[in-house]
Parts: sequence; structure tokens; C-alpha cells
Amino acid sequence: MRAKVEVMLKDGVLDPQGEAVCHALGSLGFDGVSKVRQGKIIELDLADGTTKDDVRAMCEKLLANTVIETYRIEIG
Amino acid sequence: MRAKVEVMLKDGVLDPQGEAVCHALGSLGFDGVSKVRQGKIIELDLADGTTKDDVRAMCEKLLANTVIETYRIEIG
Repeated sequence: MRAKVEVMLKDGVLDPQGEAVCHALGSLGFDGVSKVRQGKIIELDLADGTTKDDVRAMCEKLLANTVIETYRIEIG
Repeated sequence: MRAKVEVMLKDGVLDPQGEAVCHALGSLGFDGVSKVRQGKIIELDLADGTTKDDVRAMCEKLLANTVIETYRIEIG
């Protein structure tokens, strides 16, 4: 089975990487980009029978820094 | 309007970051993780009227390195 985890910075946490992308898009002539936020996507190939709770534990322990990041899990 | 771009390494391109995560999960006692791939997620706040083609152009020019990466665009 496969799980997909999206990790994004929480609102209010400064995202210099996203700001850099935003400015770069402006410099390339793409107007109308008002804000960019960048995050991580982690695709996991898991043994059958792994539960969403297991993946949640992985997020809490390793994949996300829950002080500044939120995560979202998609199974299947 | 908002667009979400997912950028992943193409199959066959070495992903040392994903491998590091895979090993780290094993070290933490999470068995059954056979493979991990890590990618980027980019959320864009765009002016109304921006089309998917505009976002595709952003991907081709800046957001993705199409030699080694694939991208997927979600609008809305």
C-alpha cells in the first residue's frame, strides 16, 4: 500500500523559500502571483496492514516538525 | 484563486533524501517501509483569471526541473 504525506509550514511561520519563488516568478514576468508557500511531499511504500495511525506516528516522530509544520495524510 | 503544484523526481532518478527518510524510519522501529520518495509542494495565490496554462509555464520555467522532475497542477 501507499501513503502520501503533505507537510506545510503553519500559517504565520515565515517561508523564505516560498517568498524567493514568489519574487522569482515576478522577475520572470508572471504577474498576479501574490503569495507562494512551499512544502514537502513524502510518498511511502508500506507493508499491507499499515494503518493511518502508524503513518501519523511517523509524522509526529520524524516526517514533520509539529512546532512549525502541519501534515496531512492520504492513504491509498 | 489558488493553485497547487506537486513536483516529484522522475522514476529512476536517485532520491537520496527519500532514502535517508526510509532508513531513519527503519531505525525508529517503523518496519515495513520499503520505499520513500520525497518531493515538493508549491501553493500559489494567483490573480483571478490565471489559467492552468499560465501555471504550466511557471512550472516549465522555474518550479520544476523537467529533466529530472515531473509536476502535477491542481487548480482551485
